[in-house]
Amino acid sequence: MAGLHVRSVLVTGANRGIGLGFVQHFLRMPNPPQWIFAGCRDPKGQRELQNLASKHPNIIIIPLEVSDPASIKAAAAKVGEHLGGSGLNLLINNAGILKAKSLDNEVLQDMTETYTTNTVGPMLMGQAFLPLLKKAAQGSPGSGLSCSKAAIVNISSIGGSIASAFGWELMQVTSYRCSKAALNMLSKCQSLAYKEHGILCVALHPGWVQTDMGIPCLAPLVQGMLKVLSSLSEKDTGAYLDWEGNVIPW
Amino acid sequence: MAGLHVRSVLVTGANRGIGLGFVQHFLRMPNPPQWIFAGCRDPKGQRELQNLASKHPNIIIIPLEVSDPASIKAAAAKVGEHLGGSGLNLLINNAGILKAKSLDNEVLQDMTETYTTNTVGPMLMGQAFLPLLKKAAQGSPGSGLSCSKAAIVNISSIGGSIASAFGWELMQVTSYRCSKAALNMLSKCQSLAYKEHGILCVALHPGWVQTDMGIPCLAPLVQGMLKVLSSLSEKDTGAYLDWEGNVIPW
Repeated sequence: MAGLHVRSVLVTGANRGIGLGFVQHFLRMPNPPQWIFAGCRDPKGQRELQNLASKHPNIIIIPLEVSDPASIKAAAAKVGEHLGGSGLNLLINNAGILKAKSLDNEVLQDMTETYTTNTVGPMLMGQAFLPLLKKAAQGSPGSGLSCSKAAIVNISSIGGSIASAFGWELMQVTSYRCSKAALNMLSKCQSLAYKEHGILCVALHPGWVQTDMGIPCLAPLVQGMLKVLSSLSEKDTGAYLDWEGNVIPW
Repeated sequence: MAGLHVRSVLVTGANRGIGLGFVQHFLRMPNPPQWIFAGCRDPKGQRELQNLASKHPNIIIIPLEVSDPASIKAAAAKVGEHLGGSGLNLLINNAGILKAKSLDNEVLQDMTETYTTNTVGPMLMGQAFLPLLKKAAQGSPGSGLSCSKAAIVNISSIGGSIASAFGWELMQVTSYRCSKAALNMLSKCQSLAYKEHGILCVALHPGWVQTDMGIPCLAPLVQGMLKVLSSLSEKDTGAYLDWEGNVIPW
């Protein structure tokens, strides 16, 4: 990860799966971040993350429910306090939910809950952390955009690709697909709105993974995503990429 | 509209703008539908639609709030009663809302309200009217898909095109864009799920119109859309088209 040098990163949904994988990989970098903010809904119940944080003082666990605007505001305030006067380089919006249903069985509540967590959450996170991301961009040398400077990374899914309708025969999950297509639109909107502030924004597909499949299986995907992030520049803002850096059709 | 022959059609948001335009154009067809179901939230306050219905007994006004599952179920029951044993050929999901905001000013409530009306509503409508649409497909001669047989038409917007981000400089409307990108995904999901039932599904961009711009200005757009609908066949199901029939990039 020669190209990715961040002083501070926040990962949402950091207690398990890909989120926890990101935290572990950041720790193993030759120059690990000074602050790794690990957002999770229920910090007390998360033994693996707690163990990691007890060994690594640069991990700071932040209580965070991304579907709750008040929780997001409180988290932004806490992160700001830790950072003192400096900004946040990297916001990884990883927290997400999936309710396994066929189109026939989707209901209003599942649709809006999934949308709130998977789409509205990343939007509110972007708004709340914008001042800290701006500060990071302003404090970084050089022009152009990069993930080392200031970036929002939205963990999307190839399930959100309207063009491909990938995996339809196996999983209809319309509520999830709609939320991820909307998240891809949000990423595009964020890229257009935040470019002037020096913030790069992308949507990333991590591979079709099960959250509980275990960290060893996730390692190549997380490593791949970090490699992709390290390679991004101004021309990539607003893109929709997989963990190998391939462009996914919207 | 030589190619479009429907015995029954339901238009949501039929009290004004494009919805009312559809109702008027159906009336003017050489062979107008036997049933034109005009869904609207508050039938009592809609003088223009009421006047039209008083002159044309084939217009049946249906109280319908597409963000309310119970209202949708009641509407489907009413439409079913009117149709007796026959099916519904065409469902036009036109009802939609737009809250004019910049990304900085979007809030949770506007995001979920817009999504509920613009995305979840069309999904629930598809579910509730599926039995009637199936019946229409089964009762129509010939194989293949067409709007004269059985179809769901989701009125989307080029604002939902992630690839184009059309009009961003003029209108950010992230809540609207996200809901329409998600509606495009829904259309794709519906096309995949309902193809086996003989139902064609498309997302249509009517042109950038203001609902209150008046029927005369809308006429060419509505005419254009009806011409497009009349031309669709099996190969078009799942497509995202504008009122001239051009494919819009997702």
